[in-house]
Amino acid sequence: MAKQKIPYSTLDTPVVLVDMDKLETNIREMSQLAAEAGVKLRPHTKVHESALIARMQIEAGACGIEVGSVDQAEPMGEGGIDDILIAHPFYGEHKLATLKRLLNKPELKVTVVIDMVEQAEGISQVGQAVGRKVPVLLKIETGGNRYGVLPGKPTLNLAKKLDQLPGIELIGIYAHESGAESTEEGVAKMALEVATIMAETARMLKREGIMIEHVSVGASPTFPATCRYIKEGKFPEITEVHPGGRVIGDILYMRAFGNTREACALTVLTAVMGTSHPGHAIIDAGWKTFGAESLIDHREMPGFFWNGRPSYGSIQSRPDLWLGRLAAESAWVYYTDPKKKLSLGERLEIVPNTANLVVNIHDKLYGVRNGEVERVIPVTG
Amino acid sequence: MAKQKIPYSTLDTPVVLVDMDKLETNIREMSQLAAEAGVKLRPHTKVHESALIARMQIEAGACGIEVGSVDQAEPMGEGGIDDILIAHPFYGEHKLATLKRLLNKPELKVTVVIDMVEQAEGISQVGQAVGRKVPVLLKIETGGNRYGVLPGKPTLNLAKKLDQLPGIELIGIYAHESGAESTEEGVAKMALEVATIMAETARMLKREGIMIEHVSVGASPTFPATCRYIKEGKFPEITEVHPGGRVIGDILYMRAFGNTREACALTVLTAVMGTSHPGHAIIDAGWKTFGAESLIDHREMPGFFWNGRPSYGSIQSRPDLWLGRLAAESAWVYYTDPKKKLSLGERLEIVPNTANLVVNIHDKLYGVRNGEVERVIPVTG
Repeated sequence: MAKQKIPYSTLDTPVVLVDMDKLETNIREMSQLAAEAGVKLRPHTKVHESALIARMQIEAGACGIEVGSVDQAEPMGEGGIDDILIAHPFYGEHKLATLKRLLNKPELKVTVVIDMVEQAEGISQVGQAVGRKVPVLLKIETGGNRYGVLPGKPTLNLAKKLDQLPGIELIGIYAHESGAESTEEGVAKMALEVATIMAETARMLKREGIMIEHVSVGASPTFPATCRYIKEGKFPEITEVHPGGRVIGDILYMRAFGNTREACALTVLTAVMGTSHPGHAIIDAGWKTFGAESLIDHREMPGFFWNGRPSYGSIQSRPDLWLGRLAAESAWVYYTDPKKKLSLGERLEIVPNTANLVVNIHDKLYGVRNGEVERVIPVTG
Repeated sequence: MAKQKIPYSTLDTPVVLVDMDKLETNIREMSQLAAEAGVKLRPHTKVHESALIARMQIEAGACGIEVGSVDQAEPMGEGGIDDILIAHPFYGEHKLATLKRLLNKPELKVTVVIDMVEQAEGISQVGQAVGRKVPVLLKIETGGNRYGVLPGKPTLNLAKKLDQLPGIELIGIYAHESGAESTEEGVAKMALEVATIMAETARMLKREGIMIEHVSVGASPTFPATCRYIKEGKFPEITEVHPGGRVIGDILYMRAFGNTREACALTVLTAVMGTSHPGHAIIDAGWKTFGAESLIDHREMPGFFWNGRPSYGSIQSRPDLWLGRLAAESAWVYYTDPKKKLSLGERLEIVPNTANLVVNIHDKLYGVRNGEVERVIPVTG
């Protein structure tokens, strides 16, 4: 007999829900876009931190995954993922000790990203110690202004130095698009610019005798445009794309054109604990559930504030409600329409500003479908 | 032989440190202020979520503790705390089931706070079911504009209704000061106003034959002023104060005059992972470590932004550095003085904007003294 499913309306609050239909649709659409473009898809998993969802993405066609920090590769490896790219450059004995543990698993393919020779030297020593050449991608600065070496001469100089290190193998270049103007055109323009820089850089390195195979670009907002350009044959050099947040979706990525509001798969389920005030209700979740991301960088956008307050999330089916203020374990839901009040005990499903902070705060997510809990998704880190 | 202590400089990053000297000083000073005023101290523990620190506070003279949500009372009870006030009103079967479990521990004294009769009705039913009258405080709206019933007639009416409920006992009134102007005078003014309202409300209820014993006020910013007024004999009605954040300290409370910058006991230890850019370094902690609190409500304050970016924390001994931007697992530390750069692997200790969000994200804190790890402090929830 099948295990009895419980309606998610009976869960204690606050909890984090993942709409399995939306999740599966997002996974399928991402795989399809990449497949149609003929480019490998390597989703960044920081948004869900779940080996289970990562495996769903691989089953749908992804070639492997990407994580942010080296520490996050360990639980993914233990969760059955065998091809992991570590997207952030790292440095120092602790990070290298983690890398060493990863490299000691022969079944696990680990690729790292660096933007300074000092990072690569440590990695090379570990590679020599374990007897494996560590595949390395060189991170190119394409305007994101975080990690990255400038294209052109600085990239060539660094690539030549990397070629000298015995414990690594420079196999490609890597870029992450960020900071685009928040319009569809702005995002497409950035996709084009970054792809152009990366293709030129790849050709330049090959001309100089540095035989790289991989060119990895990507971010959730630019993903469809990048796939379109690749499909049109504009950038045969690009081998891999690595969008992340789009599989889950949130308000941050929606504002950056990384997902639609409708595609957001993750919500926080909360309940109303107090309605003694005429202007707002109090719910049982605050910054300890949502994190405290106000999206302050968007503060100049029209409609950002309501009565001087930013929004900390978007309430399903209730555009008249404004989640305008968080305390540690409670929050204010303001009535923008004074005729539509909430009742004690009423439940709200809220799309958070940053899903990946919400996931990080929680140990498990509830995968729901047709009003029922289908499975518990452990956050494996 | 004593166990060898390790220097905290050898810990992997990012980790959360608690300076034990500062913590103990903060605990002692809070106890001393309350003792000198002759008022009971019941610290709110949301800022540390640690039964161990709560026990230190009780050993130093606190009469018990206060938690925000009913769920947080359970781990504190299991951690050996026997007198817990639940500060936030709650409603609904799940919260009542938790309350019932708490009431079934005869050694545990639990007091609840409500601001609507509907909340009290559920609690009364639980009280009857377990055969214990649940002590209840009535939350008074004193300007904080969250939970609370208005002083005067609304309070009297609600108090009369509570007196009819068989499973509870109305024992007092409760207020939490918030929203003061961020100056010392503003904070003292709010302390005076709230204490005045609460003392008047207590006298009014007694005149009406409702025999309450307890009047609880407090918040970290108002705590010293409230103690001073009580010491001066202005408010003999007030029996208890409940400051919270002050024991740990952070930038949010510093801005609200709840603690000094020097008294902040909690820091995030991070390391520099990249210095390839001339204007900033990248560290190995982002919003998944700090939370994402930009303190947007203070955006009009002078010096809030540097180059258009808010600050996500204050770096120890380095006022020239600006933690101006967070990603999920990394952050930008900008050089406001271009002559003072950071080096790869260099470590930074950062006072976060909201310590209690940082604590909530982590499972353990490292208690440090004289450069060494003295003990691990589990975050018990």
